[in-house]
Amino acid sequence: MKTSKFFIATQKEVPAEAEIVSHRLMLRAGLIRRLSAGIYTWLPLGLRIVRKVERIVREEMNRAGALELIMPVVQPGELWQESGRWQAYGPELLRFKDRHERDFVMQPTSEEVITDLARSELKSYRRLPTHFYQIQTKFRDERRPRFGIMRGREFVMKDGYSFHADYADLEREYRNMYDTYTRIFTRLGLEFRAVAADTGAIGGTGSHEFHVLAESGEDAIAFCPQSDYAANVELAEALAPGARPAAREAMRKVATPGKTKCEAVAELLGIALQRTVKAVALMHDRDFILLVVRGDHDLNEIKAQKMIGSFRFATEAEIREHLHSPAGYIGPPMGGSGAVGAKVRVIADRTVAAMADFVCGANDEGYHLTGVNWGRDLPEPQVEDIRNAVAGDPSPDGKGTLEIVRGIEVGHIFQLRTKYSEAMGARFLDAAGAEKPFEMGCYGIGVTRVVAAAIEQNHDERGVMFPAPIAPFEVALVPIGYHKSEAVRSAAAKLYGQLLEAGVDVLMDDRDERPGVLFADMDLIGIPHRIVISDRALAAGKAEYKGRRDEKPADLPLDEVIPTLLKKLA
Amino acid sequence: MKTSKFFIATQKEVPAEAEIVSHRLMLRAGLIRRLSAGIYTWLPLGLRIVRKVERIVREEMNRAGALELIMPVVQPGELWQESGRWQAYGPELLRFKDRHERDFVMQPTSEEVITDLARSELKSYRRLPTHFYQIQTKFRDERRPRFGIMRGREFVMKDGYSFHADYADLEREYRNMYDTYTRIFTRLGLEFRAVAADTGAIGGTGSHEFHVLAESGEDAIAFCPQSDYAANVELAEALAPGARPAAREAMRKVATPGKTKCEAVAELLGIALQRTVKAVALMHDRDFILLVVRGDHDLNEIKAQKMIGSFRFATEAEIREHLHSPAGYIGPPMGGSGAVGAKVRVIADRTVAAMADFVCGANDEGYHLTGVNWGRDLPEPQVEDIRNAVAGDPSPDGKGTLEIVRGIEVGHIFQLRTKYSEAMGARFLDAAGAEKPFEMGCYGIGVTRVVAAAIEQNHDERGVMFPAPIAPFEVALVPIGYHKSEAVRSAAAKLYGQLLEAGVDVLMDDRDERPGVLFADMDLIGIPHRIVISDRALAAGKAEYKGRRDEKPADLPLDEVIPTLLKKLA
Repeated sequence: MKTSKFFIATQKEVPAEAEIVSHRLMLRAGLIRRLSAGIYTWLPLGLRIVRKVERIVREEMNRAGALELIMPVVQPGELWQESGRWQAYGPELLRFKDRHERDFVMQPTSEEVITDLARSELKSYRRLPTHFYQIQTKFRDERRPRFGIMRGREFVMKDGYSFHADYADLEREYRNMYDTYTRIFTRLGLEFRAVAADTGAIGGTGSHEFHVLAESGEDAIAFCPQSDYAANVELAEALAPGARPAAREAMRKVATPGKTKCEAVAELLGIALQRTVKAVALMHDRDFILLVVRGDHDLNEIKAQKMIGSFRFATEAEIREHLHSPAGYIGPPMGGSGAVGAKVRVIADRTVAAMADFVCGANDEGYHLTGVNWGRDLPEPQVEDIRNAVAGDPSPDGKGTLEIVRGIEVGHIFQLRTKYSEAMGARFLDAAGAEKPFEMGCYGIGVTRVVAAAIEQNHDERGVMFPAPIAPFEVALVPIGYHKSEAVRSAAAKLYGQLLEAGVDVLMDDRDERPGVLFADMDLIGIPHRIVISDRALAAGKAEYKGRRDEKPADLPLDEVIPTLLKKLA
Repeated sequence: MKTSKFFIATQKEVPAEAEIVSHRLMLRAGLIRRLSAGIYTWLPLGLRIVRKVERIVREEMNRAGALELIMPVVQPGELWQESGRWQAYGPELLRFKDRHERDFVMQPTSEEVITDLARSELKSYRRLPTHFYQIQTKFRDERRPRFGIMRGREFVMKDGYSFHADYADLEREYRNMYDTYTRIFTRLGLEFRAVAADTGAIGGTGSHEFHVLAESGEDAIAFCPQSDYAANVELAEALAPGARPAAREAMRKVATPGKTKCEAVAELLGIALQRTVKAVALMHDRDFILLVVRGDHDLNEIKAQKMIGSFRFATEAEIREHLHSPAGYIGPPMGGSGAVGAKVRVIADRTVAAMADFVCGANDEGYHLTGVNWGRDLPEPQVEDIRNAVAGDPSPDGKGTLEIVRGIEVGHIFQLRTKYSEAMGARFLDAAGAEKPFEMGCYGIGVTRVVAAAIEQNHDERGVMFPAPIAPFEVALVPIGYHKSEAVRSAAAKLYGQLLEAGVDVLMDDRDERPGVLFADMDLIGIPHRIVISDRALAAGKAEYKGRRDEKPADLPLDEVIPTLLKKLA
């Protein structure tokens, strides 16, 4: 492609609303243009990237045995009422009526439609397993669309749905998809991690997220560099750093007036924050429960809810009623069965349970206790995993120490099990002639989101640095003085022809602009390899090569240009 | 692909609502499944066909210099208010509100969005010409969706929009697109015709439709087999078959009681219908106008409207007021300035104006006139082209005689001119620094409709007969006794591997079914070439070949199978 025949729409200024780097760079590089909040047109340059992502996704899904189809964007409301999502889904589900006042939705995903298809087309076990997928436009009416493509309303997603006769076969396909997604994100040239995840709104059990690693990621991921372990921090198991040491101090009550936070207490006492514990008071129905985590740790409400059931935080009045103390000075109650708060249920995080000689609130305004020890000063607590994992925690697989990185979710695989097939009466006849609901899996990749995530992970101050497999072009051929020098023009034309013949996706920038403008644009749009043709270099029989991540260009003999590029692109 | 790894969903029964052959066959062959009225899922087999159509369209559009982008399906209502289509479009335009109560539409086409893009991105003549296109989901909320994909609500369309500095350049691109569409439909393997067309609701001037010829087509097309002339019958110029002969009869008034139709009068008088003329009375504002066409011809209301302006048919009372006769016996008024109806404006079709000794109503209940002659019995009329062309008419280009065929519209190219750019203030700066509205063209192809049209044109009692370029597979390899005979299995596996290696898109039907079932399915889904492997043929070192349109199979030496297929597919 020649720039003169293409549409390059780079720009210097971007709207102030573009808060994150991928949004700014996608506008500046001319990949997208905003049509409405969270709704974007993909310009020709951006669409080339989307198509390259789609092709890799499609090739790997086909190779894995999944079959592509296309389900409608507009779907009848009745199916969504059958599954229960008509009621369960919030206003993110775009609903409307057609001219005959019938209810429809614009698909955010297609579980209902595919389950409806399966119940009429996959009636026998001989049809199983079957895995259908589509690459199709989706819509979610986000309350506050932002970050450009990252949290937009209209987007393109690959969504696949598999149907199985039993759970063992679903598990097999789930592993197949885990491996397929791993191949896809590897081929896309992205640094990523598959992490165990909470299943959120889609339902079912068993789920992994695939995250592109980037500092700007919305999600925190705990992973072990010494092993394969990775999990969303929301879900990662948090272990105690070691066994509880023996008690060495006597318990003492110390005055800590006005010090209601662990940080302030530690500072006053001149001790490490890791020596303190904090207590959080909850109500579960009519039960008052005290959760205790180390002073520097965060309570994980998802874990707490899974263990306790639904809860709310206790009010100041409820805290005073049960502990006779204001909130800033509370702790697990000391002493025997007659003492204040002796009947309060105390749940200690594993790390807290392994602490000796710790500092906690004294349940007395203006006082804390030091040198507190479980079993000696107060009863052994119920021990549970109720905090977020942090860097330095032991890996739950016993193979090393956790680190925390941030990621952008670009893929998600679920074991839906029979959630939809039961709700919608989608059954098949097994070999013995018995009717059974399908075991189902579902598997998504945010195709357009991948583009934004790739940019979040790969950029510098000059612009995007696309991985070669999804770059809009693989090579930028930049002739200097194309409109003035016959030698440059003919050398560029020759090389351009040779590159096309070699199957290289090349953009020749034949605009009549200053070299600085051409270089800046090619860098901004993220083409990974650049060849410069100039009278100066031609005189020495050479061209200039620069990788997008290289600091400096290097001269190359003209006849080595193509072999060198082919080697780099292989 | 092997059938065992694919999803073949042929069926014997189809819903009674499937009125046309393409709808029935698309359901029977398992290309589509209905989700809601006019809304269909494309099953894997059908999607393969859509993708092949898309690929050919895309390759030719790219070759023609157009640039692919993707505009959103969901578009803000404000842009449609700017263009005026918010008001002009009927309930076919699906409108809805988002969660913030803002107006949106689901795109039926994208003139507004592309014009909005052009006014911000193509501000200088140096950016012109530019032609953007997309292949994207469309929605039209048809009042009565039917005929399956043919008149559905959700469909896929290629819509392109070009922007030009002046009309001459628009005309150049219009011809470029005419040629491109001709290449596209030729490559699709369809018999088609480009016809001059009325522009309908999209507006602008200058338009051609591309029709796939099929007896079931909704549109009548007049074309000249001796030349390139072709036009929608609505628009085709209708010439008189020759010059007016001399008068030979005297005018006579004959009793025709109860004969109010030309057919009945001709029968009563024992003359050809072509000797009669019929009169149609119209009101244009307060003017009473009489249109006269030959008894066997049909008035073309579009032509009449273009000439007269908007009109309505006259009421019985208005006819009596102006002609003193009931409707069944009216005709152009005879005699001089004092006679009844002498002031009535009479417009005769060209053919009627070339008639002598004709028969018409006498403006007297129960009577007609015979031997009537213009200039002698009544004044020469105003002569205009006001009827539909019919087979046998002289071709307007003077090169032969018209024939009429029926067609299915699958493509449409328009010269929009400045309709949208004026309405939306979309201007560029020309070389002299003056602001000018863009000259615009737009160019559509109904991608999914092409599949249905191809079937209407290519089918027999056994099913679809797809042209090879868009067949779901090019070759069906059918082993007989695959699950019993090791020889068949290994010969089939070898040939399958060789076909894949030769780049042939082959489906090997490895199902454990009777040969009759396999043959019927491969015929039904329309695979153009079939190779059968059997123990019988193998014993003679042969395989059996049958083209989908062949009457009988023929034996082929095994080593000639691939060369023969490659030759047929070339």
